[in-house]
Amino acid sequence: MSHYCNVTGRFSIEKFRGTLNPMNSSLGIDYGTNSVRALIVDCADGRELGSCIVDYPSGHQGVLLDPRNHHLARQNPADYILGLEKAVQGAVRQAKEKGFSPDTLVGIGVDTTGSSPLPVDEKNGALGMVPRWSEHLAAQCWLWKDHTSHEEAAAITRLAALHRPQYVAKCGNTYSSEWFWAKIWRCLKVAPEVFEAAYSWVELADWVPAVLAGVRDPRQIKRGVCMAGHKALYSEEWSGLPDKEFLALLDARLADLRDRLYEKAYDAMTPAGRLCPEWAARLGLPEGIPIAIGEMDVHYGAIGSGVTEGTLVKVIGTSTCDCGVVSAEREVADIPGICGIVKGAILPGYYGVEAGQSAVGDIFKWWVEVVCQGDAQLHQQLSEEAAALRPGQSGLIALDWNNGNRTILVDPMLTGLLLGQTLYTTRAEIYRALIEATAYGARAIIERLKEYGVPVERVVCAGGIAEKNALAMQIYADVTGCAIHLAGSSQACALGAAVSAAVQAGVYEDFPAAQAAMTSLKDTVYQPIPGQQATYNKLYAIYRKLHDAFGGVAKDADLSGVMKQLIEIKNQLS
Amino acid sequence: MSHYCNVTGRFSIEKFRGTLNPMNSSLGIDYGTNSVRALIVDCADGRELGSCIVDYPSGHQGVLLDPRNHHLARQNPADYILGLEKAVQGAVRQAKEKGFSPDTLVGIGVDTTGSSPLPVDEKNGALGMVPRWSEHLAAQCWLWKDHTSHEEAAAITRLAALHRPQYVAKCGNTYSSEWFWAKIWRCLKVAPEVFEAAYSWVELADWVPAVLAGVRDPRQIKRGVCMAGHKALYSEEWSGLPDKEFLALLDARLADLRDRLYEKAYDAMTPAGRLCPEWAARLGLPEGIPIAIGEMDVHYGAIGSGVTEGTLVKVIGTSTCDCGVVSAEREVADIPGICGIVKGAILPGYYGVEAGQSAVGDIFKWWVEVVCQGDAQLHQQLSEEAAALRPGQSGLIALDWNNGNRTILVDPMLTGLLLGQTLYTTRAEIYRALIEATAYGARAIIERLKEYGVPVERVVCAGGIAEKNALAMQIYADVTGCAIHLAGSSQACALGAAVSAAVQAGVYEDFPAAQAAMTSLKDTVYQPIPGQQATYNKLYAIYRKLHDAFGGVAKDADLSGVMKQLIEIKNQLS
Repeated sequence: MSHYCNVTGRFSIEKFRGTLNPMNSSLGIDYGTNSVRALIVDCADGRELGSCIVDYPSGHQGVLLDPRNHHLARQNPADYILGLEKAVQGAVRQAKEKGFSPDTLVGIGVDTTGSSPLPVDEKNGALGMVPRWSEHLAAQCWLWKDHTSHEEAAAITRLAALHRPQYVAKCGNTYSSEWFWAKIWRCLKVAPEVFEAAYSWVELADWVPAVLAGVRDPRQIKRGVCMAGHKALYSEEWSGLPDKEFLALLDARLADLRDRLYEKAYDAMTPAGRLCPEWAARLGLPEGIPIAIGEMDVHYGAIGSGVTEGTLVKVIGTSTCDCGVVSAEREVADIPGICGIVKGAILPGYYGVEAGQSAVGDIFKWWVEVVCQGDAQLHQQLSEEAAALRPGQSGLIALDWNNGNRTILVDPMLTGLLLGQTLYTTRAEIYRALIEATAYGARAIIERLKEYGVPVERVVCAGGIAEKNALAMQIYADVTGCAIHLAGSSQACALGAAVSAAVQAGVYEDFPAAQAAMTSLKDTVYQPIPGQQATYNKLYAIYRKLHDAFGGVAKDADLSGVMKQLIEIKNQLS
Repeated sequence: MSHYCNVTGRFSIEKFRGTLNPMNSSLGIDYGTNSVRALIVDCADGRELGSCIVDYPSGHQGVLLDPRNHHLARQNPADYILGLEKAVQGAVRQAKEKGFSPDTLVGIGVDTTGSSPLPVDEKNGALGMVPRWSEHLAAQCWLWKDHTSHEEAAAITRLAALHRPQYVAKCGNTYSSEWFWAKIWRCLKVAPEVFEAAYSWVELADWVPAVLAGVRDPRQIKRGVCMAGHKALYSEEWSGLPDKEFLALLDARLADLRDRLYEKAYDAMTPAGRLCPEWAARLGLPEGIPIAIGEMDVHYGAIGSGVTEGTLVKVIGTSTCDCGVVSAEREVADIPGICGIVKGAILPGYYGVEAGQSAVGDIFKWWVEVVCQGDAQLHQQLSEEAAALRPGQSGLIALDWNNGNRTILVDPMLTGLLLGQTLYTTRAEIYRALIEATAYGARAIIERLKEYGVPVERVVCAGGIAEKNALAMQIYADVTGCAIHLAGSSQACALGAAVSAAVQAGVYEDFPAAQAAMTSLKDTVYQPIPGQQATYNKLYAIYRKLHDAFGGVAKDADLSGVMKQLIEIKNQLS
């Protein structure tokens, strides 16, 4: 924390009504994959005053799909506006029942999925909301999990390696198909008419605050360094976004686009703007309150879970995002295969380090709902059956790559693997093997971080899986050898956004102070069980062998003993 | 066929009532894994006159299991006697309705699973039927699929490699845990009291004919060269069973046992005996008719499916057995990884060549019934959905090793593998991938046979899967590139036993003549579809890569491209 204090001097925090009000409240708005949530909290202690979730009405559970291409995932921007209004109004209504008064609201914070860029017109209107383009999939928001641009991502990786190695050094030397430039380039290729019609492109995390602030010119949007640094190759080291010469290697029109994007991106000490009269009226909130800079959901989630140097926050849902911070005063080496190391991306004054797994809850959901054709009850049943098994007992091992590998291989084209099946293998055994696979993936990330000097002394998990799946959490403890804590709030992302709003409003001097007051941990802690840990160490060695062989790390793998090793581990249990 | 005629001179076929009777009939008795079937056919054309199936009443679907050890599979010998009586009586009853008269019956043939040895007392009584031992699992018949003796099999392989390489050269240099000596040795180790109580051990295929013939001394049982050669390391090259010096390397008591086994084994030109008065009365059949030598179910199945040089017969059920024959006048090289090459084992005058896959139908059953918790209707539904998919479309590939690999790796400790899963992979796609995996396994066997000079010009499939699963048969044609024919009889094993009985009775001079008259093919032929074949060639190359890497053939495998190759194959489809 002292590190933090040392570097905050250069940020100017504007005091806004802060300490005058006997009760200050702030609003966090969290845009997830399927719904948007609004959360009003008491700035004194983070206590929840009101919240409301609104499902996006369009597509399949809010996602626009293309049955011919399962890599495609888009979202209707109209859902964001509709959801914003309804969710905030709902949260206000609920809070009012607890005596909340809107005039105590001191600030708003917004987090969203990312990289989820959308094309906008000259007035910052979403192209997808213009009738002419409303039916065109390429004119909608390109959701984080859209993987249609894997060829473009690979080309960017190749070109950067040749011409600008520094650009990708901070994101594990690999540019992802989930990210900004790959998506826009893809749009240019497959839907040039949409690209031409777009004046600019904006990350959802930047667009929503700009909408609330009434920004009508895309060039005036305050862009967050979180999205810029992690997704768009932005760095102060090379004066912002990639230079035009490099972008022209991709396509001359991308170089032209650079002029209509931004020169500078900001960390969470700079506000995105102030609530404009129109939206203040629509939401029934005080006009002019500050709107915090937008961040990625998991980054504000990390803040809402109490991230600090030495604490790795894992937000575990359909996929995971692992967030750590390292003081900006330290030297941080580039870490191969890590999604991003960006100064100011999570906490101002720190490098934000982000890693993640492309699918966790989604893999369990696939197994139970798609393959076993079950529902929540079957999740419960398989979970109970799986909990009765001992590590190694099934003889199975799996890779957690059903949706590719985000860290440490950074390869969306990898796929799943299950090994060790007999004629007696049950679906509960496979369910457990899939949970274990995600735990091995988590361990691989932690080991990589530590190897490159990012301290991981404590793991705090947040998100749906962390709260609901005690079996998974115990397995994570046993596999990683770390005590697993749980974030106190089940709405950690929205809470983090509200924390940022409170800092922005001057209720707290800095983030550590705000986090200390407004965030907490649950009492439950999952401790590694030594016997299980020992078995998992053996299984993890096999996982790494498969991981390296199929992931392209080892090109002369000796896998001849793998199946027998699993049987030996099983036989040694008795 | 000319080869065959050249070598038959030395066999003396005893004429028994043969051509005198206007209608001759013969009886085939087929002991399967879950039930026994009796089949009475017209010797003129193989027409079925009556048949009856009796399920074994003991255990789980006739198999005695041990919940603590899924390698164990035993059978109650009392079920064999009960089933024999009921099945034959049932077949006779049914045949009588079509005008059959028992006095037209000229002979009986018996086939059984194997290697399924059972311990017997001095009077050839099954130990498992003696009250003192009836509850002891080790005193029952050790069913073919009992894999408890894998350690013993590995030790025999090791010892033979050192001291008697010729012993295992004909069975792919690997002695299987499914076979005679491994099982008896295992019994000696885990249940020495049973071993001590046993006077001798007899293969079920030899025991049933001996029971019917009233043989009261195990040393007088006529043992078939089929079981002896394929399962017990018997060969005329080294004067019968393994020598005592070698057996003593295993255990001195096994060397002692050799004296209570047999010196010589016979092919199907020698009868096992004649129907004894007691069993003639019990079954209502003519006393004194010849009983053919017992053979393994699939070997008589091959005969009943018209096996001849150049025709590979695949009996596909829970597992497969692939049978080919090569004239005994030719030189046949030892074939690495092939279960057995035994002179006279299938057809007299030919080398019998046997290969097989440890699980085929069992894998489909596992997927549908154990994992998807479905029934026959789901089999049908998944089959229809899978049939709508194109080769390569799912992006999946699997290994067919859920029950180990019998040929060409000969390793019961190998396990299953599934690769290429995404979050969208359906159970029908996995179902199809598993069918394809068994087809790749079939192709690996055919390629190995051809490589070592066993001609495979035509494939004839028999058994439940062959008849019921048109999708599987088309995939087999596409993967192997061979036209797939179907055996005319759905009771090919019992029919083959009846063919042997007819030859034994002198109705036909030799097997080719009997086969020509009594066996047939169905009209349906599955031809390879060139486009599908091309895709499967690519997929098979990937299968072989995985097969060799995990099977221990390649110890420096480059698997780094495998997942992407599958995606490329999929993308090339459109």
